[in-house]
Amino acid sequence: MTALDLTQLLRPRSVAIIGASDKNPWGAMALRVLKQMDFSGPVHLVNRRGGEVLGRRSVTSARAIQEPVDAAFVVVPASGLAEAIEDMAAAGIRHGAIVTSGFAEVGDEGAAQQARIFARAEDLGLTLLGPNSLGFLNFVDRVGVGTLPVTTPLLADPRVGLVSQSGATAGILSRAANKTNVSLSYSVALGNEARVGLSDVVEFLVDDATTRSIAVFAESIRDPARFLGVARKALAARKPIVMLKVGVGELAAAVAQAHTGALVGDNKIFEAACREYGVVRVDTLEELLHTADFLAYAGVLPDAKFAVASISGGACEMIADRGDDHGVPFARFDAATTARVKAELPDFGAAHNPLDITGAAMSDPDLFRRSIAAIAPDPQVGLIGVCFEAPAAEEDVSPVTRPAIGAIAKGLNEAGVKGFLLQQTYQPITPFARQLAAEAGLPYIASGLGHTMRSVGAAFAWSRLAREGLPKAPPAPAPIVARPITERETLDVLAASGVPVVPARIARSRAEAEAAAREIAEPVVLKILSPDIQHKTEVGGVQLNLVGQETVGDAYEAMMARVAAVRPTAHIEGVIVSPMREGGLELFVGVARDPTWGLAIAVGLGGVFVELLHDTSLRLLPVRPEMVKTMLGELRGAKVLAGYRGGPPVDVDAVARAVAAIGDAAIALGPDLASLEINPLWVDGDRIECLDALAVWTA
Amino acid sequence: MTALDLTQLLRPRSVAIIGASDKNPWGAMALRVLKQMDFSGPVHLVNRRGGEVLGRRSVTSARAIQEPVDAAFVVVPASGLAEAIEDMAAAGIRHGAIVTSGFAEVGDEGAAQQARIFARAEDLGLTLLGPNSLGFLNFVDRVGVGTLPVTTPLLADPRVGLVSQSGATAGILSRAANKTNVSLSYSVALGNEARVGLSDVVEFLVDDATTRSIAVFAESIRDPARFLGVARKALAARKPIVMLKVGVGELAAAVAQAHTGALVGDNKIFEAACREYGVVRVDTLEELLHTADFLAYAGVLPDAKFAVASISGGACEMIADRGDDHGVPFARFDAATTARVKAELPDFGAAHNPLDITGAAMSDPDLFRRSIAAIAPDPQVGLIGVCFEAPAAEEDVSPVTRPAIGAIAKGLNEAGVKGFLLQQTYQPITPFARQLAAEAGLPYIASGLGHTMRSVGAAFAWSRLAREGLPKAPPAPAPIVARPITERETLDVLAASGVPVVPARIARSRAEAEAAAREIAEPVVLKILSPDIQHKTEVGGVQLNLVGQETVGDAYEAMMARVAAVRPTAHIEGVIVSPMREGGLELFVGVARDPTWGLAIAVGLGGVFVELLHDTSLRLLPVRPEMVKTMLGELRGAKVLAGYRGGPPVDVDAVARAVAAIGDAAIALGPDLASLEINPLWVDGDRIECLDALAVWTA
Repeated sequence: MTALDLTQLLRPRSVAIIGASDKNPWGAMALRVLKQMDFSGPVHLVNRRGGEVLGRRSVTSARAIQEPVDAAFVVVPASGLAEAIEDMAAAGIRHGAIVTSGFAEVGDEGAAQQARIFARAEDLGLTLLGPNSLGFLNFVDRVGVGTLPVTTPLLADPRVGLVSQSGATAGILSRAANKTNVSLSYSVALGNEARVGLSDVVEFLVDDATTRSIAVFAESIRDPARFLGVARKALAARKPIVMLKVGVGELAAAVAQAHTGALVGDNKIFEAACREYGVVRVDTLEELLHTADFLAYAGVLPDAKFAVASISGGACEMIADRGDDHGVPFARFDAATTARVKAELPDFGAAHNPLDITGAAMSDPDLFRRSIAAIAPDPQVGLIGVCFEAPAAEEDVSPVTRPAIGAIAKGLNEAGVKGFLLQQTYQPITPFARQLAAEAGLPYIASGLGHTMRSVGAAFAWSRLAREGLPKAPPAPAPIVARPITERETLDVLAASGVPVVPARIARSRAEAEAAAREIAEPVVLKILSPDIQHKTEVGGVQLNLVGQETVGDAYEAMMARVAAVRPTAHIEGVIVSPMREGGLELFVGVARDPTWGLAIAVGLGGVFVELLHDTSLRLLPVRPEMVKTMLGELRGAKVLAGYRGGPPVDVDAVARAVAAIGDAAIALGPDLASLEINPLWVDGDRIECLDALAVWTA
Repeated sequence: MTALDLTQLLRPRSVAIIGASDKNPWGAMALRVLKQMDFSGPVHLVNRRGGEVLGRRSVTSARAIQEPVDAAFVVVPASGLAEAIEDMAAAGIRHGAIVTSGFAEVGDEGAAQQARIFARAEDLGLTLLGPNSLGFLNFVDRVGVGTLPVTTPLLADPRVGLVSQSGATAGILSRAANKTNVSLSYSVALGNEARVGLSDVVEFLVDDATTRSIAVFAESIRDPARFLGVARKALAARKPIVMLKVGVGELAAAVAQAHTGALVGDNKIFEAACREYGVVRVDTLEELLHTADFLAYAGVLPDAKFAVASISGGACEMIADRGDDHGVPFARFDAATTARVKAELPDFGAAHNPLDITGAAMSDPDLFRRSIAAIAPDPQVGLIGVCFEAPAAEEDVSPVTRPAIGAIAKGLNEAGVKGFLLQQTYQPITPFARQLAAEAGLPYIASGLGHTMRSVGAAFAWSRLAREGLPKAPPAPAPIVARPITERETLDVLAASGVPVVPARIARSRAEAEAAAREIAEPVVLKILSPDIQHKTEVGGVQLNLVGQETVGDAYEAMMARVAAVRPTAHIEGVIVSPMREGGLELFVGVARDPTWGLAIAVGLGGVFVELLHDTSLRLLPVRPEMVKTMLGELRGAKVLAGYRGGPPVDVDAVARAVAAIGDAAIALGPDLASLEINPLWVDGDRIECLDALAVWTA
């Protein structure tokens, strides 16, 4: 899908409200919104009967406006929508938001009606938000089309673009943003997304010059490939996307194979995609707003760490604890920094970070500035937080408040790295607090220690991705035409794709089995070879640890007899003879096709790690070896790779190449592959072999 | 330590400020606090020079007051503290808070001085808060002794008692509580705890009739045994303790044995103790206040679950997701409830919980009441949350606000179970919102979906403990006098304590080894027996899986020779011959003595679960079998107990009895036991045996 141009829709210079009447509350609310937003362009009311509506002159149709109109807010009942759209098109109004409800959200019949009306709208060249959309607020140009609540006074410096699949939540977020000093650039309620979708609006916000970060409230991602494309574009533009996605507890439809399916729930795949593309996930509405705002302020941080100063030891410990929770990298002060800190705080034992500058700052507020000056030059420091409470009202101001905030502001402005004031508790940044901060020149106030440490952790993680950039998608591997069915065919395909695979001989007689055992270093393994048998152990089709030609020959005959008895109708081609691999580690590699996100690959340590603990790391395909190394590092049992119980360390580079090659093979196997499971991928130091493989096909 | 009576200290009817002067800011602040708290009792100022101080008449000593004074706030410099205390005692003022600093918090010299002064104060019969304490606020009697900030207007219905080891944090929390409608009964800043400690104040709050829950900000628990005693008393009194403990990332001094030590970090033990005693842990200041307040409101919930109604599907999904995060039990509506819901919401597919009552409630606000009436009678429902935003100011009020809040209040008041209004975003409950709620009769407003779901999860978990009550501490087991050193002696002690132990013979010659193997079902295991060798495998002192008398005899001789060569000075008593155990599961049981909390027991699945994943569950000793079953259920790998890869399910009751008996044996081994490790405790269905044991002694 190509990008929609939403400029005229979301930045209209003239607005019409179609269906306005004294009885219809939507029209009145929309008019109030335009007023609250101080919209100065022309506003037209359309009412079928005309006359005075809501205290203004109305016209009987959009065609009667006789002036160009950029966007309409349509508040007609469902039965009148088709006609309203014809009228819009005839009047040359090509953009609008449709609040009218009773369509896809109420069932199949409504969905069919919606599809008909919006297909016609598209034929007419209209670009519409909704239906069932509360419209949008544009704080850049100060225009609001719709009924999202406006809280006044509006904030200065708009920078966070908000888009929501829930209208009610868009309203709650718009109001909360204002009260907590998160200055929105746009707030868009998507409604049913018949035409304009989540990714369209996100892309508009990526392109928008004013918007510096994007907050998304999502219920479902309907166009995953396009969303990932937009996420890639956002990262390249260095605009963070922060997302609260609800409904993550529900598991998506399981993929065909139970085993791999259990590892690949829908949210897990989405989470993997987000991690890969730098989309920051959060859990609450406050985190959505504040993380987006903090990232807008912080921008791309340098490859350095976080430093904190506080007058409270308790706060220092809390910051350390919550920082640990959210992966905040704390700077370790170097000797020069320690010396500078000790010069300011002579009674101090050690200059730890977070730095307790003690209550001395209450009688000597300039100590804040001098402490910042002491830690800021440390090359490890890339972001500074200073704990202090910004007063909500004059009654909260003590004699030390203004001098302290002044000293903090001066220190941070001279620091050469980004910095902010950190309020321990989460509370509104009142107009009073904003005024006081502005007077002092304070660059930023972050409110609530828990939220802020999460934001700081996200800022460092996102900055790293933004600095490094996403690798270009590699060219798709050449398709594999022949479809492997048996284990052996699957292993052969993998081997041809550059994946190391255990050697094997196919034996179709006792003599061939004995000969194969002779050629292969014993002990050997026998496995039944049949396109009709997927689970070989269940039919007695696996025999391990065989030594001696006669033993191998006997085992061959016994297995053929046993399997034939259990599965008389199966076509049996013979047995596979392979060397027995012992010791080392067993990894699990599973590829599964998610109906929404396509092929995803899971890597884990074998056995209990996968089966009981679901300790796997997941990514969308393709993966590069570098990403596989990151995946291996995410495993809870990752330590085992460095050597366990005296075993040699794993050659992680070689494993990463092998796993990436398995992923490429899965892509090459084409769209009918449902899943591909390598279990185990055997690793002993730098020896790596797929011992077993199973491909499952959808059709 | 026995309980201190803090009534006169924390509920004084008359107050003196000792050291007040026009220059000393503490005195002026303390006077202002008394005024803000509307204190109506007598207030005396003591200044060495006398005359007018802070616009009031002062006296030159406490003795000169000539009236009974319940409590003093002492603001003299450090050099004057000893004298001030003598003066207090001479004047008969037996209680006070000392803000004076420069003692234990600045180093060893200050600590020594503090010890001298407070020993003298104790001799004089004084009970003092501090030094370095900002004092306290008492909102029950409206008196404040100290300089904690007071925010006005004071809130009605005080109920949350707050105690903090950080004065700065006590101030921040006091202010934040007022702004977010958490009505404190007391706010106490402990300072250096020279005399009055955390547990003393918590116990006072447990005994206080007004206080319904207790919020604790802690940096370190200095008197663990007493704290647990108070926690036990609080649970019996059904007063929840909610605690934010900082500095949890720092690991306590490791216990002697590296292996067990790694499993038993200080915070982990404390967390185990909290779980056992019903102390609710939280991570942020907001959570501390709101969880305590929510628990004060909810009280002991019945053995039932949570139900939610919201007009927003997005909110329902968010509540489900965050509820899952925090262990909230959601009710599954029964058929009768479903029918009642469908009668109210005919267009509805299914009556899920959380219940989306749709936007229809915006035009028909009474739908809130009817929806509550539909779900409240369900026997599974024990608590109801209804999503709606309480307006912060008149400008946030829409035409539907008051009717909706009225309908919610009516529904909740008629529900027969506790209920509350749930604001999606975290925001202050302004005086306006409080007024509106009071007018409607709304029982409770919970603010912020994330915090609230955490509070709801905590309320259900705490209520379960409060309903069940803590078991009485069992009588201490009879001491074991003989100290076991070798593996065999340790296993014998365990066997004598009722722990199932693998059978064994001690062999001191080849012939004895062969005879032992004959008596025991083969295959057998040989292990070297020496009080000087703890790690037997390292010296070649373990040989597994031996079959045949001659093999056993050869192995005996080889082992004796090998060990003698590696450890020529070790005293070797012979070898232990035991049956080889294969299959089944290996558990790990470790007991370690924590310097702060005493003996703690860790249970885990063996091998990678313990060694790599640290997947253990921890409790303080003693443990009862029921608690061990809970511990086993907490393991990430718990599923394995139900049977893994075709193995039989574990007899969990028998394992629980064995583990509890191991704990009792560790207690019986007395105060010099550093650690006791059973690795493995072998389990095969209902067969349970300790296969190896190691006791380590401190002295």
